[in-house]
Amino acid sequence: MTNPTERNQNIQQLRQLIEGIDCAMLTTLDDDGSLHSRPMSVCGEIDSAGVLWFFSLANSYKIHEIQHHQQVNVSFSAPDHNRYISISGTAQLVREHNKLQEKWQPKLETWFPQGLDEPNIALLKVKIHKADYWDSSSNFAAKTISLLELSHI
Amino acid sequence: MTNPTERNQNIQQLRQLIEGIDCAMLTTLDDDGSLHSRPMSVCGEIDSAGVLWFFSLANSYKIHEIQHHQQVNVSFSAPDHNRYISISGTAQLVREHNKLQEKWQPKLETWFPQGLDEPNIALLKVKIHKADYWDSSSNFAAKTISLLELSHI
Repeated sequence: MTNPTERNQNIQQLRQLIEGIDCAMLTTLDDDGSLHSRPMSVCGEIDSAGVLWFFSLANSYKIHEIQHHQQVNVSFSAPDHNRYISISGTAQLVREHNKLQEKWQPKLETWFPQGLDEPNIALLKVKIHKADYWDSSSNFAAKTISLLELSHI
Repeated sequence: MTNPTERNQNIQQLRQLIEGIDCAMLTTLDDDGSLHSRPMSVCGEIDSAGVLWFFSLANSYKIHEIQHHQQVNVSFSAPDHNRYISISGTAQLVREHNKLQEKWQPKLETWFPQGLDEPNIALLKVKIHKADYWDSSSNFAAKTISLLELSHI
């Protein structure tokens, strides 16, 4: 558990760890107990509330999975730097137009050619609880960053 | 579902997709529903039974998780090639000395300095059921490779 100052420092540290890694793997749990992952383009940096944002289609299967099991993992891999980050958090679908406009980036047109006019465009909000990271090829002991707030004790 | 010939071709295709990616992220489900991942050094190629092998310590927390929920995800990221692979399968702990000897590689001494004399050394056997992969930066539709055998229908 962290106080607000520590929490801000932790968010800043986590931002630095994932900096330059554009694509994360989002893992979700299916109804039959199987685990699936897929690459997701990271949308801006982790915000001050400790949230990672991704664009998605509201009718995609991962949204179905998230509605049945909100807890997800987001992993970042930078093999050239022997850096690996595992983020555990809860995911939620967001469809508010103001938020979609705030987070939209032109690079996303590759996957959403109609931009914000795409009928099922939505945001996936991943609230970070905890991150484990490894940043050395010789020592694979994890270091942990918690973003759980005091109110969650 | 696949017949034996298709299955061998699928295994071969999957071997090619993950070739050159030494470190995968293994995601497991914890008792509280949270999802955790960690980097794992891949131990040789996918074998003819469609199994991925990793060395691990038998008393590590991921083994506890796997004993409670056998289904895992193994993801491979090659960001330089825009190639991402998600493997869904079931994991099992293997401690047979012959198998440990067969799979041991000197590069593993970085993480297991005592080698096969490490008291808790074990293998994690991940039987692959299905793989999704993405290998283009412009088209993020998944392609799927099934390794489920006819006997599983």
